[in-house]
Amino acid sequence: MTQTKRYNAFYAQSGGVTAVINASACGVIETCRRHSDRIQTLYAGRNGIIGALTEELIDTSQESSEAIAALRHTPGGAFGSCRYKLKSIDTHRAQYERLIEVFKAHDIRYFFYNGGGDSADTCLKISQLSERMGYPLQAIHVAKTIDNDLPLTDNSPGFGSVAKYVAVSTREAALDVASMCSTSTKVFILEVMGRHAGWIAAAAGLAGEGEEQPPHLVLLPEVAFDRAKVMAKIKQTVERCGYCVIVASEGVRDAEGKFLADTGLVDAFGHSQLGGVAPVLAGMVKEELGYKYHWAVADYLQRAARHIASQVDVDQAYAVGVRAVECALEGKNAVMPAIRRVSDAPYAWELFDAPLEEIANREKMMPAEYLREDGFGISEAGRRYFTALIAGEAYPPYENGLPKVAELKRALVAPKLPPFSI
Amino acid sequence: MTQTKRYNAFYAQSGGVTAVINASACGVIETCRRHSDRIQTLYAGRNGIIGALTEELIDTSQESSEAIAALRHTPGGAFGSCRYKLKSIDTHRAQYERLIEVFKAHDIRYFFYNGGGDSADTCLKISQLSERMGYPLQAIHVAKTIDNDLPLTDNSPGFGSVAKYVAVSTREAALDVASMCSTSTKVFILEVMGRHAGWIAAAAGLAGEGEEQPPHLVLLPEVAFDRAKVMAKIKQTVERCGYCVIVASEGVRDAEGKFLADTGLVDAFGHSQLGGVAPVLAGMVKEELGYKYHWAVADYLQRAARHIASQVDVDQAYAVGVRAVECALEGKNAVMPAIRRVSDAPYAWELFDAPLEEIANREKMMPAEYLREDGFGISEAGRRYFTALIAGEAYPPYENGLPKVAELKRALVAPKLPPFSI
Repeated sequence: MTQTKRYNAFYAQSGGVTAVINASACGVIETCRRHSDRIQTLYAGRNGIIGALTEELIDTSQESSEAIAALRHTPGGAFGSCRYKLKSIDTHRAQYERLIEVFKAHDIRYFFYNGGGDSADTCLKISQLSERMGYPLQAIHVAKTIDNDLPLTDNSPGFGSVAKYVAVSTREAALDVASMCSTSTKVFILEVMGRHAGWIAAAAGLAGEGEEQPPHLVLLPEVAFDRAKVMAKIKQTVERCGYCVIVASEGVRDAEGKFLADTGLVDAFGHSQLGGVAPVLAGMVKEELGYKYHWAVADYLQRAARHIASQVDVDQAYAVGVRAVECALEGKNAVMPAIRRVSDAPYAWELFDAPLEEIANREKMMPAEYLREDGFGISEAGRRYFTALIAGEAYPPYENGLPKVAELKRALVAPKLPPFSI
Repeated sequence: MTQTKRYNAFYAQSGGVTAVINASACGVIETCRRHSDRIQTLYAGRNGIIGALTEELIDTSQESSEAIAALRHTPGGAFGSCRYKLKSIDTHRAQYERLIEVFKAHDIRYFFYNGGGDSADTCLKISQLSERMGYPLQAIHVAKTIDNDLPLTDNSPGFGSVAKYVAVSTREAALDVASMCSTSTKVFILEVMGRHAGWIAAAAGLAGEGEEQPPHLVLLPEVAFDRAKVMAKIKQTVERCGYCVIVASEGVRDAEGKFLADTGLVDAFGHSQLGGVAPVLAGMVKEELGYKYHWAVADYLQRAARHIASQVDVDQAYAVGVRAVECALEGKNAVMPAIRRVSDAPYAWELFDAPLEEIANREKMMPAEYLREDGFGISEAGRRYFTALIAGEAYPPYENGLPKVAELKRALVAPKLPPFSI
């Protein structure tokens, strides 16, 4: 009977984190553990790929199965994430040689990278080590981004939860505004993430149905901001409904591509004022319409809101982690488990292995048919797409009124190599 | 056998709404229905006391018991709220005469007003109608405010849920920041409500324990903002922990009482820029420390967040509604069911009837002993106080991934009087 040699694996988190990236980590780690005949130890990079370069490897075998299971309901990036993009192999060979040294020193032959489009590029470069530099390594990408802009996959793990958070928050805040509008706030603006594409703001459209229900206006980067048209629409809405709820992407821009948030605001010292499309819109409303307004900026709250995560999203995040390990064990390289929508209602999905070459550095924009004709809301096609992704409430456990989170040891493996500065 | 004559009742919502004000409405309405031998119909004022003045009375008997039950998990003010304060009986007798006309026309003898401190003043004035103007009416106040500043009661219904939302959101966002801080955002600022008192920001202190855990700084109106001290503390925290999470009340002010949000920001046209203590703090961080920052403004999201309401809060909001009706049936006038804390852990509470005269127009400030000595966090006494109020998750039911809310007919009773303009 032949015994297959066991190798170690490496996993890291990259880019902006999500409410469910740790659910993918959980899927990867638990699946590695189930295949202990093939995979010996899974090391997690401290702060993403940086941990591989600096040989800061967290020994996940030190973590209890309870702690790993708790990752499924813990937001943020449990092992640390990074914004760090590997340069080309041709011009920055030393970095890749260092990676190979670290992988060799720790007998790592499986590489799992959990990130979005930029990170897929890093994963793709790593996947070429084998062919270009002769080190036998399989690199699998684990999809993650709230931006929902990864190509090939029907949606990206991380998006469904932020979509749910934004839709729920919009519905709730709109009820608040509706009840006060006769003598108080008439216009409420919620700013959400989305610098390049309006996926997140569009999802807020689920909070109501049609033009009469809030949100009355959804403002997206895809639709050039026309101040006169938007102000007229707000005025009409207030006159008709008594109030107006607006959800705006941070990346709203005019026909010249100028971000609304860069509107030349300066502080008392003449320094330019710091972003926020919501206060800029509020200023316009005040100036042109004179309505009492309120505004909110969800910022990190939206992408960390594990307390109201979508069950579909958590399931998919976990599943792509599981499948990534299976891909590696099947001998695959340079792939990303992607989601295929099988049906809208009831929603059904399955995974397939998408080639990383067709994913890295490409952005999927929102289809125009997801928007209503006036550009201020979602169409029925958009509603079908988004509704599926926010289904189910994956509540975390609570203790003393607060969500419990994974408590990890994060024990670093003793380095075997000299230090390396990045 | 004598038959007691049945009278009608009036209920209205007043001031800023909360995630649980409708739970109080539910308590009032269900209890009136249980006492149909004494109370015939409960009318709800459309948009608070304004509905009484304009004779816009919603006939709650038209609503199904399912719709009324659903109020328990519906945020906002289901019948409309208002910011409208009755003037003195001495100077504005006509308004009170109108109220009496409306009450007489609709045989209303019980008056329930659901609001905070300002509204308690209105309720107190109404309670004097009987003695001052000879119309037999009993007025009972139903406590509600996210500001937690009502006197006599240990806490105000509405506060526990916003406290829970803020503590949960702070814990979640802090995990996000912690995981990215090596290469990205180092300072995160969450702005929460609280113009006069820091109850809400202080509750965010529950998210961590001690100075090493986020939130690292809680900034309150009660502690004069000292820019040099705050910046030094942020710098120390980033150097020690790698990142710094700050929760700031909108009402943070300096030693001269000047609000930080009024910092002289002007837009490109020279108009003064619109509030937001978070962007102002972010500007200081950028200018003095140069750290990458992010900021969020929770605004209405926090007081509408029924999806993560505290079970204790929902229970108390419902209970004060129930007790208000019982008070009326017991012949009481000018009282407010208030909460007495019986024990901290396990938390136990009971209701008592507090005299409205000692409540109207008085603000309860946060006790100094709830704060840590450095003023940037909560003490153990504060933790004991707040922890009790955020216990339990009162999840609403969901449909298609979104919380279900009460669907009401809001049928208005035919007016019997000539119009009245306010």
